[in-house]
Amino acid sequence: MMRELTIGIDIGGTNTKYGIVDKSGEVLFQGSISTTAFEEFKDYFNSLTNAVRVALQRLKGEYRVLGIGVGAANGNYYKGTIERATNLKWKGVIPLADMLKEEFDMPAVITNDANAAAVGEMVYGAAKGMKDFVVITLGTGLGSGFVTNGMLLNGKHGIAGEVGHTSVNPAGRYCNCGKRGCLETYVSATGIKRTVYKLLADHLEPSELRGISFDNLNTKMITEAAVRGDVVALAAFEYTGRILGMKLSETVVHTDPEAIFLFGGLSLAGDLIFTPTIRHMEANLMPLFRGKVKVLPSGLQNQAAPILGASSLIWNYLDNRKNPVREVIA
Amino acid sequence: MMRELTIGIDIGGTNTKYGIVDKSGEVLFQGSISTTAFEEFKDYFNSLTNAVRVALQRLKGEYRVLGIGVGAANGNYYKGTIERATNLKWKGVIPLADMLKEEFDMPAVITNDANAAAVGEMVYGAAKGMKDFVVITLGTGLGSGFVTNGMLLNGKHGIAGEVGHTSVNPAGRYCNCGKRGCLETYVSATGIKRTVYKLLADHLEPSELRGISFDNLNTKMITEAAVRGDVVALAAFEYTGRILGMKLSETVVHTDPEAIFLFGGLSLAGDLIFTPTIRHMEANLMPLFRGKVKVLPSGLQNQAAPILGASSLIWNYLDNRKNPVREVIA
Repeated sequence: MMRELTIGIDIGGTNTKYGIVDKSGEVLFQGSISTTAFEEFKDYFNSLTNAVRVALQRLKGEYRVLGIGVGAANGNYYKGTIERATNLKWKGVIPLADMLKEEFDMPAVITNDANAAAVGEMVYGAAKGMKDFVVITLGTGLGSGFVTNGMLLNGKHGIAGEVGHTSVNPAGRYCNCGKRGCLETYVSATGIKRTVYKLLADHLEPSELRGISFDNLNTKMITEAAVRGDVVALAAFEYTGRILGMKLSETVVHTDPEAIFLFGGLSLAGDLIFTPTIRHMEANLMPLFRGKVKVLPSGLQNQAAPILGASSLIWNYLDNRKNPVREVIA
Repeated sequence: MMRELTIGIDIGGTNTKYGIVDKSGEVLFQGSISTTAFEEFKDYFNSLTNAVRVALQRLKGEYRVLGIGVGAANGNYYKGTIERATNLKWKGVIPLADMLKEEFDMPAVITNDANAAAVGEMVYGAAKGMKDFVVITLGTGLGSGFVTNGMLLNGKHGIAGEVGHTSVNPAGRYCNCGKRGCLETYVSATGIKRTVYKLLADHLEPSELRGISFDNLNTKMITEAAVRGDVVALAAFEYTGRILGMKLSETVVHTDPEAIFLFGGLSLAGDLIFTPTIRHMEANLMPLFRGKVKVLPSGLQNQAAPILGASSLIWNYLDNRKNPVREVIA
């Protein structure tokens, strides 16, 4: 029997992951190239498409590749472009979907990485059957993807779901986007590092984290220190969960989701992050919404998740084409 | 030719308006009864249904009534109920859609008043053809209704769009919902009154508003004073627009709408409210979104608007039934 497959490409700030996936979410092949090693976009694109061709040649048996899904910061679903992504060195507007479509002669869909994670959660993960949910991706920054009425919420300009740039404190921490006090400056892998450093600056308590430089500090170290009872690490999780919970309460009253899924490094800290997040979300919610919205770990907590998310865009695209609710680009 | 009509009922905290409307938005009949004069819900319901029957008997020519749409605070679309509405005296959960369906033997759909306003804007108003927009209703409180991907966003529990209860200041003004510092305590007919009183308390400037009691003060007086150059009234609009603009910037990055429509008393103040709102929304937006989202007056700025909004639910319900995307209650 002919096996139907899709290609998923996740363009991260450091590495670009690519893989070939079947409808059940099995990853038949995956690989990665550097995102940062190429000064010119053209050279990056050639390297990426060559790598994907090599992967396709390794596939055994009969198969048909249905399309290519791409997740990338500032990926624009309608235009098929990457626009002014702050974490990528290529500037301007890159028509990546059209370039891939031409190169491989198949549909190509692009969206931002958090939207891809949301579709991945719906197609392969813990949101199967859900019509209204949110995925929050906690990486270097904080991304978010919304599904409403069973469909990815792209918005008018294809850039919906930038909850990471809602305001915690207009006079707060500097953000890559040019503003100050954005949620992602507090709640993300970088955000919790900044919080640890603030706590180390403000307080006198001893902490094993006093011996680690900012550049070397990471979420895993903070998590492990918290598990060992380090008061600064514990306080950093409480602070992070408090801010995340407060802001999630605002997201909840916007779209009334069934569940909010937390994805990525910080979410792997388990109760350390979920307990304060849920407590503060509930405390800050309008009473009508209390006790109704689940906060859950993503069902795609593995290395292949970004590839799965990107590849899921094609299954979703093909499903929507059978039942077209609105025009989608191909 | 048989004329197709729908009934719209808007249950406000003071009055209940009802009317009979055709597809173009022409209101053939409208009337109102008191919402507050009935201690028992049963008596209110009888009075309302009698009034609607009398209205139907007055219609001339051939017609067919397709259904009844109801807008009410805390109206739940999926369940067809009014739940714990803070501005209504009847407590508990009232199965109004089922009661109307049984009484009139036709489909009945209920949603909150701001959602009804959003559907009305799409069916009859300034959002015709738009797939992604937001309506903000500025009355006693602040309501909001979202359309995403061309469909009303009800959310999982049928209560989406409570932007009036996002937080401006967790230690701020007391809100009817039980929390403090909710957006609607600053931005609404009541909110701007509270702001005028705060400004009169804090500042020494003379103002014509110093002669008016809190109970007598209303949006129209504040608007007229501002037009005459009253510094306190002008400052109150600036303050209200600043807070609305800041919070709209957060709504924009959630759902990326094409436009945000302002509806109701405060929005009739024109530039006095639109200018600071747009300025502060743009200033607080993540740069990617700047200059993209229109803030516009509602296209339904007249007395019949709540009836139009409620009646539009039936046209929308019938359209969705032809193209069912998800189960809707009838």
